[in-house]
Amino acid sequence: MNYQPEKYEEKSSSNPPSGGWGATAICAISTAPGVGGIAVIRVSGERAIEICDTVFRSKNSAENIAHQAAYTVKYGTVVSERNEVIDDVLVTVFRAPHSFTGEDVVEISCHGSIYVQQQILQLLLQNGCTLAKAGEFTMRAFQNGKMDLSQAEAVADLIASTTAASHRMAINQMRGGFSDELKELRTQLLDFVSLVELELDFSEEDVEFADRSKLKELATNIEQHIARLANSFQVGNALKSGIPVALVGETNVGKSTLLNLLLNEEKAIVSDIHGTTRDVIEDLVNIDGITFRFIDTAGIRKTTDTIENLGIERTYQKIEQSEIVLWLIDCTQITEHIEWLTEKISKRAEGKKVILVFNKIDKLTEEERAVIAQLFEGFDAERIYISAKKRINTDKLQKALVKASQLHAIQAGDVIVNNIRHYEALTKSQESAQRVIEGLENGISGDFLSQDIRECMHYLGEITGQISNDEVLGNIFGKFCIGK
Amino acid sequence: MNYQPEKYEEKSSSNPPSGGWGATAICAISTAPGVGGIAVIRVSGERAIEICDTVFRSKNSAENIAHQAAYTVKYGTVVSERNEVIDDVLVTVFRAPHSFTGEDVVEISCHGSIYVQQQILQLLLQNGCTLAKAGEFTMRAFQNGKMDLSQAEAVADLIASTTAASHRMAINQMRGGFSDELKELRTQLLDFVSLVELELDFSEEDVEFADRSKLKELATNIEQHIARLANSFQVGNALKSGIPVALVGETNVGKSTLLNLLLNEEKAIVSDIHGTTRDVIEDLVNIDGITFRFIDTAGIRKTTDTIENLGIERTYQKIEQSEIVLWLIDCTQITEHIEWLTEKISKRAEGKKVILVFNKIDKLTEEERAVIAQLFEGFDAERIYISAKKRINTDKLQKALVKASQLHAIQAGDVIVNNIRHYEALTKSQESAQRVIEGLENGISGDFLSQDIRECMHYLGEITGQISNDEVLGNIFGKFCIGK
Repeated sequence: MNYQPEKYEEKSSSNPPSGGWGATAICAISTAPGVGGIAVIRVSGERAIEICDTVFRSKNSAENIAHQAAYTVKYGTVVSERNEVIDDVLVTVFRAPHSFTGEDVVEISCHGSIYVQQQILQLLLQNGCTLAKAGEFTMRAFQNGKMDLSQAEAVADLIASTTAASHRMAINQMRGGFSDELKELRTQLLDFVSLVELELDFSEEDVEFADRSKLKELATNIEQHIARLANSFQVGNALKSGIPVALVGETNVGKSTLLNLLLNEEKAIVSDIHGTTRDVIEDLVNIDGITFRFIDTAGIRKTTDTIENLGIERTYQKIEQSEIVLWLIDCTQITEHIEWLTEKISKRAEGKKVILVFNKIDKLTEEERAVIAQLFEGFDAERIYISAKKRINTDKLQKALVKASQLHAIQAGDVIVNNIRHYEALTKSQESAQRVIEGLENGISGDFLSQDIRECMHYLGEITGQISNDEVLGNIFGKFCIGK
Repeated sequence: MNYQPEKYEEKSSSNPPSGGWGATAICAISTAPGVGGIAVIRVSGERAIEICDTVFRSKNSAENIAHQAAYTVKYGTVVSERNEVIDDVLVTVFRAPHSFTGEDVVEISCHGSIYVQQQILQLLLQNGCTLAKAGEFTMRAFQNGKMDLSQAEAVADLIASTTAASHRMAINQMRGGFSDELKELRTQLLDFVSLVELELDFSEEDVEFADRSKLKELATNIEQHIARLANSFQVGNALKSGIPVALVGETNVGKSTLLNLLLNEEKAIVSDIHGTTRDVIEDLVNIDGITFRFIDTAGIRKTTDTIENLGIERTYQKIEQSEIVLWLIDCTQITEHIEWLTEKISKRAEGKKVILVFNKIDKLTEEERAVIAQLFEGFDAERIYISAKKRINTDKLQKALVKASQLHAIQAGDVIVNNIRHYEALTKSQESAQRVIEGLENGISGDFLSQDIRECMHYLGEITGQISNDEVLGNIFGKFCIGK
C-alpha cells in the first residue's frame, strides 16, 4: 500500500494568498503572438476594472468601465499617462463570478500591431497589473471553482488539438464529460463508504447494515467503471500521439514510395494550416481526423549476415510496438522466401491488425493476381491491391487504416482518457478498488475496507484537483500558453 | 496639364454590386495566425447574424444572435451540422451602421487552437459566408462611409507600426487628423470655386463678385496649406523608413564597433517583441521612438590608389543621401590629414546635420582633449566625446542623434504625410493651386480658373477616396492583412 494517511484530507494544499487569488490583477496578450488584424489583451482580478479605467476613455459617453454593464462592449481609446491616444479599442467587461476566471475580467480588443499590443500591456503593468504566467487565467478559473483540474487540462489540450479526434476528446473533457463520470464514481464510493463506516460506529453492537454480497456487487461495479476509464487510455493515448503503424516488407518492395505518398498527401493538408511545425509531424499522417504514426522499418531479407539480421530483429521489435502492421508485397517479385516470411511476420504480429498491401498491382494479369491471392489464402489479414507509383487504390488503403484503427467509431460524448496523469491516478484508484473486493472476499474488518475505499476516492480526487499541490499545479499550468 | 476632364465627377467609380456591399457576408480569422489562448473570427454583412445563428447555440437562454442586443456578449457553443460541439465561444454582436464596417458584424471569440479556428471558419463558409479578402473589412468600412481612404490606409500603417513615431503618425491619421485638414482645404476651395463660377454665370453682364487681390490671397493661403502638407512628407517618410545616418571617418577609427554597439542595444529591444524579422531591421536602430537607418561607409584615407578612391567617392555619395552625418574621429590617432578631411567632409555635408564623435576619449588627458577641441574650432557641428569600447557617453550620442533628427518635436495631433500616394496627390494638387495663382496674376478667364481649382480639389479627393477606382482600391487594400 503506497497510500499516505496524511493525505487523507480532501482539500487543496494550494491555499490562496492573503486577499484571495484575484487580489492581484493579471494581464496578458491572449491572442496568438505576432501581427494580426486585431489582438485581445485580457485582464483578470479584483482590481481589473479599476486598472483598466485608468487607461481607458469611453468614446460616446462619460461612463467608465466601472459603470459598464457586464457582458457589454464599449468603444473608446486607450491613452498613455500623457493622455496620448495609443489606440481605438473595444472593451468588454465580465463581472465575478460570471467570467472565465470567476473574477472581474476586462478584455481589450485593439489593433493587432505589435507596438500597440506592447504599449497597452506596458500601460496596464505601470498601473498595477502583473504579467500573467503561462496558464494563470485557467489556473484561477480552477482555483475559483469554475472548472475542475481535468477540465483545465482539457483547455490546453483543446488549444493544442490539430485533428478531429484530439479535438473531440479535448472538447468533451473540457465540457465536463470526464468530470461527470468521476462525480458519479465519487457518489457511488461515498454511498459505499458511509455504509461501511456506519457499521464501524455500531461495531460493538455487531450490526451488519449492508448485505456483504450486495457490497461486493457495488465494489465490482465501481472497479469495472474505473477499469473502463483506465483502459480507454490506450485508445486516448494513440489518438493523441498517433496510432503506431509498422510498415514492413522485403527490401525494394516500395516501402519508401508508399510512405512518401502518404506523407505527401498529408503535407498538402498541413500547408493549409498556419503555424504547424514541419519537423514535429514528420512521420505523422492525419487520415479522416485520426493521426497515424508511421514507423518505417528495414527491409526484411532471409540472410545469414549477422549485421543485417540485427536490423531485421529491430524490425520485429517495431512490429511489436505497433498497433497496425502494413505488410507491403511487391506483386512482381514474389520470392521463394514468402512462406518463411509469412511465418515470421504472423508470429510477431499476433494481436495486431495486419493489412496485406499488394503493390505494383497494375503490372499483373487477372490470373497472376489469383495465384498471389492463393499464396496468402490462410493468412488472416485484410488485403489491399495498390499501385503506389500510379496512385491506384491508395484511398482504399487509407480507409483500411482508419477501419483497422477501430477508433473512428468514437462519438461525441464518449469519455476517453488521454492524459498520463489521469491514467496513473485511475490505475492506482483501480488497485484500491481491487483491494476492496479482495477484502470483502476475505471478510476483512470494516476499518480496513473504509481505508481502501477512501484511498480509491483520493486518487480520483487527484484527477479533478480536489487533492492537489503546488508542484502538480505548476507542472500542469506551466505547459499552457501565456494569455490562457 | 495631365488632368482628364472625364474624371471631373466626384464620385467613386467602384459601384457597389447589386444588393449593396454587405449583401455577401464575409468572414475571416482576425487575430494573428497561429496558436493562441483565444482567437477572434469576424463576420460582416447583411446576412452575418443569420449565418452565425445557424452555427451558434446560446448557453444560458434560448435566444439567438438575432435577438441579442447590439454591443453585448453571449456565451454559447458553435456546433457542426451534425450538432457536435466545435467549441465554447463568446459572441459579440454589432448592428449596422454602428460597427467597424458599418454593416451587421458578429465577432466569435473561440479557443486559439488552429483546428478550432479552421473548423469554425469552414462552418461559416458552408453556411453562406465567403472568405474575406485582404483588407476587405476595412474596404467595406470605407465604402460604407465609416472612414475616408486616408483613414483606411492609416489602419494598415497602424497595424504595421513598430516605433513610437510611426505609431503616432498612423493613429493620428486614422483618427482623422489628416482628413480634417483635407476637409478644411476642400471647404476653402469650394468657397473659392463658387465665387469664380458665380461670375461665370453672369459673365455676359461683366460683373465681378470678388476682389481679385482677395482671391489671390485666398489661393495663396490654399497653396501654402497644401505645400505644408506636401513638405511634411520628407519628415514622414524618414520617420516611416528610418532617418538616413551616414557613419564616416578614417579607416580604423572604430566605426564598426560603434555601429555594433548601437545595433546590439537595438537587438535587445527587438527580442522582446514577437514576430519581428531580423533581416528587415538589420541596420535600423530605434532610439527614443525614432528609427535611424545607419549607412556604414568605407573608411576615408588620403590615397592615390584609384580603386580606393572609388570607394571614398561612394562614401561621399552616401553623405549626400543622408540627413545626419556622424563623423567619427579616433582621438589617439589624429593624423596630418585632418585638415584635408575636414574640408572634404564639410563640403559634402553641406545642409546636413553633422555630429563630430570623438572616440577613445578615455585614453586622453584634459590637455590633449583641449588640443583636439581647438583643431576643430571652426567646424560647425555638435561634438560628442565617447568611448565605444567602454560605453562612455553613448547615451549622449543617442540623444544627439534624436536632437539632430529634429523630429522628436512631433506632437500627438501633428499632421505628417508619410504615404507616397498622398504625397503625389498633394504635389499635383499644389501644381494646380500654383496655376490658379499664376492665372489670377495673368488675369486669365474665370472658366480656366475654375478648371484649375476643380483639378486641385480632384487630387485632394483622390487622397480621401472621393475619387477612386477599383485599381487604386485593389492596390491599397491588397496590402492589408486578412481579417482586417
